[in-house]
Amino acid sequence: MSHAAPARPPVHPRRSGLGGARRGAVCALDALRRQAATDHHVIGMGGGLPSPAQFPKRALADSFLRVIARRGGAALQYGWPEGISSLREKIAARLSRRGAEVFGEDIIVTSGAQQAIAIAFEVACRHGERVAVDPETYPAALELLRERGLVPVDMCEEMSAAYVMPAIGNPRGRPLARQLRARLLGARCAIIEDDAYADLCFAHPAPRPLLADLRQRVFHVGTFSKTLCPGLRIGYLIPPPRHFRAALRLKQSSDLQAGSLAQMIIDDYLRENDFDARLVRLRSSYHSRANLLAQALRHYLPSWQFSFPEGGFAFWLEPDSYVDERLFLERAIAAGVSFDVGSSFRRRNGSHPLAIRLCFSFVPPAALEEGTRRLAHAWSEVRRENGRAVG
Amino acid sequence: MSHAAPARPPVHPRRSGLGGARRGAVCALDALRRQAATDHHVIGMGGGLPSPAQFPKRALADSFLRVIARRGGAALQYGWPEGISSLREKIAARLSRRGAEVFGEDIIVTSGAQQAIAIAFEVACRHGERVAVDPETYPAALELLRERGLVPVDMCEEMSAAYVMPAIGNPRGRPLARQLRARLLGARCAIIEDDAYADLCFAHPAPRPLLADLRQRVFHVGTFSKTLCPGLRIGYLIPPPRHFRAALRLKQSSDLQAGSLAQMIIDDYLRENDFDARLVRLRSSYHSRANLLAQALRHYLPSWQFSFPEGGFAFWLEPDSYVDERLFLERAIAAGVSFDVGSSFRRRNGSHPLAIRLCFSFVPPAALEEGTRRLAHAWSEVRRENGRAVG
Repeated sequence: MSHAAPARPPVHPRRSGLGGARRGAVCALDALRRQAATDHHVIGMGGGLPSPAQFPKRALADSFLRVIARRGGAALQYGWPEGISSLREKIAARLSRRGAEVFGEDIIVTSGAQQAIAIAFEVACRHGERVAVDPETYPAALELLRERGLVPVDMCEEMSAAYVMPAIGNPRGRPLARQLRARLLGARCAIIEDDAYADLCFAHPAPRPLLADLRQRVFHVGTFSKTLCPGLRIGYLIPPPRHFRAALRLKQSSDLQAGSLAQMIIDDYLRENDFDARLVRLRSSYHSRANLLAQALRHYLPSWQFSFPEGGFAFWLEPDSYVDERLFLERAIAAGVSFDVGSSFRRRNGSHPLAIRLCFSFVPPAALEEGTRRLAHAWSEVRRENGRAVG
Repeated sequence: MSHAAPARPPVHPRRSGLGGARRGAVCALDALRRQAATDHHVIGMGGGLPSPAQFPKRALADSFLRVIARRGGAALQYGWPEGISSLREKIAARLSRRGAEVFGEDIIVTSGAQQAIAIAFEVACRHGERVAVDPETYPAALELLRERGLVPVDMCEEMSAAYVMPAIGNPRGRPLARQLRARLLGARCAIIEDDAYADLCFAHPAPRPLLADLRQRVFHVGTFSKTLCPGLRIGYLIPPPRHFRAALRLKQSSDLQAGSLAQMIIDDYLRENDFDARLVRLRSSYHSRANLLAQALRHYLPSWQFSFPEGGFAFWLEPDSYVDERLFLERAIAAGVSFDVGSSFRRRNGSHPLAIRLCFSFVPPAALEEGTRRLAHAWSEVRRENGRAVG
């Protein structure tokens, strides 16, 4: 029996990416986020949450009751690691309509898109390798990269893999630039295609995925979290065929399987409801929220830069001058509004130049103007403080 | 942009543990398992599934409807990675009653016990380290160890960590031997305590966990899969306090959070129902099934060795002579019954001497005798074949 000292902190490559100072900053920001989320006076414009008003509660409840009545035993029991066949077939059929030649048997149902991304990185990348990402991208993917000892780099550098959101990016809400898409099509590396917001392009249905053109090297990641609800935790992964078994083994050893009940509820929902009609409504609803927020921004913060998003949940905003982002967030929460700090989206994690993500997705549309007004108030406060500190 | 050949199979320590031959054998066994599971003529005595007749369908449906009516937005929305407070508090309260000094804030709700085990290994162990396990143990934990490049060893050898099921082991259904428990109490390594079957000791409520005596180095793993239902995928992890943050970060990067709806259903169920009364009924029900199976075994296979389990779902059976386990499983399925092959539970993965796990948990009690009769029939068949082959 060994006597390894229990006080020894295990040194593991997965955790080598986060320095102490950064971790302290992350914790402080996390504390702020939590404070904002639990304070009902704060208008929550951070977090990237879908609108709860859009959750099809009644239809999901009907699906639940049907599933329990007809398939209660199976819905509450263990299932296979890859997920239930009928749901996998429906996912494949939806992707087929977008030009991808995939079948139900190619799909692994996952516990949300995050798990699909985690499995894809694990299968596609080796410790220390370089993974190309957008200059700003999904924070949880960046965290995962760093935890796994992978190195996020620019799309133009040498890379072993790329993580991209071709249809609609996060945080900018815009598609992958045409020249970058062409570059990926011509490259030979593995590509993790995060399709989370593809069904929420304002102007059109989900576009042709990279998967359709690069079946042999795309790990395609999708989710029902943005279009149905996140609380069921159902996403999916389509790995390149030669990686299917390795990905499935990882899925199984990670958590055995995605929830049987949650899968059956979504499967029933998709069978009994017109999901495409829902998507049309969602796109229109989020589009009009984006318009409201753009109006408010132009009115209250006219000097801030942004590109109007083509889909998704948020604006990426670039104020006209620099202040400390954490201080700004503190002042904003004090003024009754929250946002996401820009540094968490950045490959290099810097907070300079100042940028924030502001979501129009979660709060009621009527609150968007008031939220923006409070943000502008906090902005003038923090700039005044900053001026005093500098002067 | 790099030109890493896409055909290169990524070599990763996680997958170094499974040799090609073993993987072939695993696939063949998996195919048999799947064949058995989908054939309604086969009495399923493998798999370690709880009895679907015991799922509290109506109570869970009531909980679902209450949750959707009262907290629909939150139940379908994203939540915090550690889980919902009220469920964490209930889990802590149950463990407190068993002597462990833990609070809600010490608990991480996970996507089933498997994820809790995976996180614990990841935090507690470094690649290549030796992890002590019982000579026979939970197959998915063994797979995980091997995938992570960890080395399963005997409890008496040098070790960096131990994975144990102190209350009720799997597959033997018996508690950890007293001298091994004493050894673990005296050792200084990290201990992953898998408490999955603790509430299903036939003779008494769940015993004092190792967590109660070794809070600083036990990773305690629990689940509602055996006592409520597996289809909701809710388990939990109590890491040693100094590892809490690392474990929570891993939980978050693995899949963000356990399902909000599933957590709220269980939380509501625990508030509105007498869970302890349910456990009394479950213990009694599984105990009487175990008695039925023991009777059938003594009648149809009197030469087979077993120790009567003290809890759990299964018997570990040691036939009186050797045959190829896969051949035996094939013949058993042909005769209309399935079981779990012994090799998958073994630290050394060998199939010699022959052993099988036979579950009394899943099929209706009335099928236990017929299942055993079919097993005896297959056994005499395969022994006759074997005799011919040898002779």
